[in-house]
Amino acid sequence: MSTLVDVDLAKSYRLLNHGPTVLVSSAHGNQRNVMAAAWAMPLDFSPPKVLVVVDKATHTRELMEASGEFVLNVPCRAQAEQVLKAGSVSGKEVDKFATCGLEAVAGDKVAAPHVAGCIAYLECRIISEPHNQQQYDLFIGEVVFARADPAVWHDGHWQFDGHDDKRSLHYIAGGNFFSIGEQFSVTADQTVD
Amino acid sequence: MSTLVDVDLAKSYRLLNHGPTVLVSSAHGNQRNVMAAAWAMPLDFSPPKVLVVVDKATHTRELMEASGEFVLNVPCRAQAEQVLKAGSVSGKEVDKFATCGLEAVAGDKVAAPHVAGCIAYLECRIISEPHNQQQYDLFIGEVVFARADPAVWHDGHWQFDGHDDKRSLHYIAGGNFFSIGEQFSVTADQTVD
Repeated sequence: MSTLVDVDLAKSYRLLNHGPTVLVSSAHGNQRNVMAAAWAMPLDFSPPKVLVVVDKATHTRELMEASGEFVLNVPCRAQAEQVLKAGSVSGKEVDKFATCGLEAVAGDKVAAPHVAGCIAYLECRIISEPHNQQQYDLFIGEVVFARADPAVWHDGHWQFDGHDDKRSLHYIAGGNFFSIGEQFSVTADQTVD
Repeated sequence: MSTLVDVDLAKSYRLLNHGPTVLVSSAHGNQRNVMAAAWAMPLDFSPPKVLVVVDKATHTRELMEASGEFVLNVPCRAQAEQVLKAGSVSGKEVDKFATCGLEAVAGDKVAAPHVAGCIAYLECRIISEPHNQQQYDLFIGEVVFARADPAVWHDGHWQFDGHDDKRSLHYIAGGNFFSIGEQFSVTADQTVD
C-alpha cells in the first residue's frame, strides 16, 4: 500500500471535482461505520467545503450527527466489490468495515477513521444546517485535512495513466460502475469576435 | 445529430449519478446564457431534485434568480472546447452561445433553452432556498423534464461503448478533462457472516 501524502487544502476540491463515488466513514464513541455515496461534491474552494447526501435511515447518519464529523474517501477500481457491499449492507448490526473487507485507519484531525487502500480522503467537520439536514438529507462539511496517493496524485492533479487499478469509481446502478477514463487537454481561444 | 428521447423522471438522477461536468443554461426576458459547472449532482429520487453551485458574479445566476428555472445539460467529449470556453468567458456582454459555438434549442417545460449536441438535459424549476443561495451559492432544482441521446442512453443507463465522442466530460482544472471510461459490473456477496 502506498503512503499517502498531504494535499494542499486549497486544492482539495480537485479530489472530487471529476465526480467520483465516495465512501463516507464516521465514528462516535466505540461505534464506527462506512457507507458508499454517489452524491458528494465540492461546494467551495476556501475554506474548502463539500456536500454529501446521507439518508436518515443510515447508521452513518446517526454517527455523523452525534460526532459532527465525517470523512469522504475516494475508492478505486481495485475496491469496487467492497464499495458495492458498503452500499448494500446496513452497519446497524454488523461491523461494516469487516463485513465489506475494508480496513479502518485512525483519523488525523478528526476522530472518524478513513479507509485503507483508498486513493484519497478528506476529513470534514459538519457545518450545522438543520434545515438542509432534515429537509434534504444534505450535509455540508468543511474540509480540515486531506491526503492522496502519490502514485496517482501529482502536482495537485489526478493522473491515472499506468494505474488502471487505482482509477476512481463512478457508480451507475445495480452493481455497474464506470472507471474514470482518458485524460486530455483543450485550449479555449479567448480572442473571440 | 441524434433525436433525443424522453427519460423517465424516476431514473433521471442516473443522468448525473456518475459525476459529469454540466452546462447550465438559463433565460429571462430576451436574455439567455450558458455556463460550465463541475459542481452539480442529484439530490433526490422522487420527485427528482438536483443541486448546482452557481457563483454570484455570473450572468447565469441573475437569469436563474429572475426566472426561477435552469437546465442542466450533459455535454460530451466532442464538445470539450466549447465547454471550456463556456467556463472561461462571461455572458454579461456577449451572446455566449454564439461565442462558445453552442446552439440554443427552445425548452420543453421551461422557458430556458437547452444546448444542442449534448447527450442529455434536465429541465429544472428552482426550489427557493434563500439561505443556501446567499450563503453557499447553492441552488436546488426539481427536475420537471429530461431527455437523453438514445445512441448512448439505453434501458435507463448510460452505455458509451462504441461512442467515444459522446462520452461524458469530467473536469479536472486548467483545460484538462477526463472522459468517462470503461463500464464494468461487480456483485456483492450478500450472505455475509
